[in-house]
Amino acid sequence: MTEINNRDRAVFEAGIKLGALYHQFVGTPINVDMIDGLSRVIEESIGVQPFVRSIGVTIDREMVEKKQNPGFGYCELEGRMLHISLQVLYKNVIAHVEMCYHEEKEYPLMSIKKIEEM
Amino acid sequence: MTEINNRDRAVFEAGIKLGALYHQFVGTPINVDMIDGLSRVIEESIGVQPFVRSIGVTIDREMVEKKQNPGFGYCELEGRMLHISLQVLYKNVIAHVEMCYHEEKEYPLMSIKKIEEM
Amino acid sequence: MTEINNRDRAVFEAGIKLGALYHQFVGTPINVDMIDGLSRVIEESIGVQPFVRSIGVTIDREMVEKKQNPGFGYCELEGRMLHISLQVLYKNVIAHVEMCYHEEKEYPLMSIKKIEEM
Amino acid sequence: MTEINNRDRAVFEAGIKLGALYHQFVGTPINVDMIDGLSRVIEESIGVQPFVRSIGVTIDREMVEKKQNPGFGYCELEGRMLHISLQVLYKNVIAHVEMCYHEEKEYPLMSIKKIEEM
Repeated sequence: MTEINNRDRAVFEAGIKLGALYHQFVGTPINVDMIDGLSRVIEESIGVQPFVRSIGVTIDREMVEKKQNPGFGYCELEGRMLHISLQVLYKNVIAHVEMCYHEEKEYPLMSIKKIEEM
Repeated sequence: MTEINNRDRAVFEAGIKLGALYHQFVGTPINVDMIDGLSRVIEESIGVQPFVRSIGVTIDREMVEKKQNPGFGYCELEGRMLHISLQVLYKNVIAHVEMCYHEEKEYPLMSIKKIEEM
Repeated sequence: MTEINNRDRAVFEAGIKLGALYHQFVGTPINVDMIDGLSRVIEESIGVQPFVRSIGVTIDREMVEKKQNPGFGYCELEGRMLHISLQVLYKNVIAHVEMCYHEEKEYPLMSIKKIEEM
Repeated sequence: MTEINNRDRAVFEAGIKLGALYHQFVGTPINVDMIDGLSRVIEESIGVQPFVRSIGVTIDREMVEKKQNPGFGYCELEGRMLHISLQVLYKNVIAHVEMCYHEEKEYPLMSIKKIEEM
């Protein structure tokens, strides 16, 4: 057992943000025209939280088009439509994390890409 | 027991939209700068759904300011911050419904304001 | 334009409950062993709300089994896994409504089944 | 910049679970009678996810009682009603994390309590 350090905290906070984003916004009714507006709002909503250095949200336009119900012209935001790139800064540490759809595993995978200690 | 008519359907659909909106968006992390962007996205997200004729969403700026955590500078969207005005058109019927905070009951009250049959 | 009556209110409240339930619980991580427990909790959570006379929630076991990620052993609750049967009582009116997956429309359809005025 | 290790991954996964739980279940309509059933379902729902070694969820009965709307007899689950204790096992590392309400900061605080490397 060791002391908890800034690196641990940076990575922990990054995980919290991805989990929160996913379960807050998945299920939102959308169509292709809403993609840009919703992406910005998700970025802002994560960006107001503590320790977020930068965030980029992309929603897969092609998947939305394919999923839009033909009769009703909309679908729900799904985890696999989301590509998230997030940097968390905790004191001297930057954690770079990501969420994107892993086709083979059929799973919206969250992963740590890089950790910078300054 | 009587036949289900267009008026029933209009009012039912209006209820669905209010319940959906509430439980999809309440909990979203926000600050005052996000109020306009988020209001528009909620309007769009309800607007893409079937039978919605018009929707107006207002988020109470004063309540957001008061609720913003002093240490962290944000809060979560709460039901009582929302004022929703919605019209659903089902065939020849327009149902006008509303959600707004009822101070005395301390409750975000949803109600039917008016039904037009044409 | 006509007076809003108890029948309108019963149907409106029924719509609210279905929309709320959907957007509150869809996205919940589940496996087949959780189906019974989660169904009961959804029923209870709708049942504590005003005007609910009875509610029955069934989650499609076969669909959950099929959707469980082979690598991870779980999936998320989706709208089309849900079968909901709800009765709302508003004064002298009972609205019977339902949500179930409409295979042809590929859509979790909410509908009014019957209205009793006593 | 250094290699990402098992400790990073354990802590990251623990953060994901807490963020997910929070934004999935906050907003659920509840009363005091539902506390036990809902706590078990939240535990199960987090427990089916990868790398979860154990989870304990407690909902603050007193706060629920106080928050129950006097007219309607229920309230919504709020972050500050939740006490979560979670262990994530990633290969040789166990991350012990927690969420509980911090009265002074008026904030449902998530924190790492302990990290064991075996």
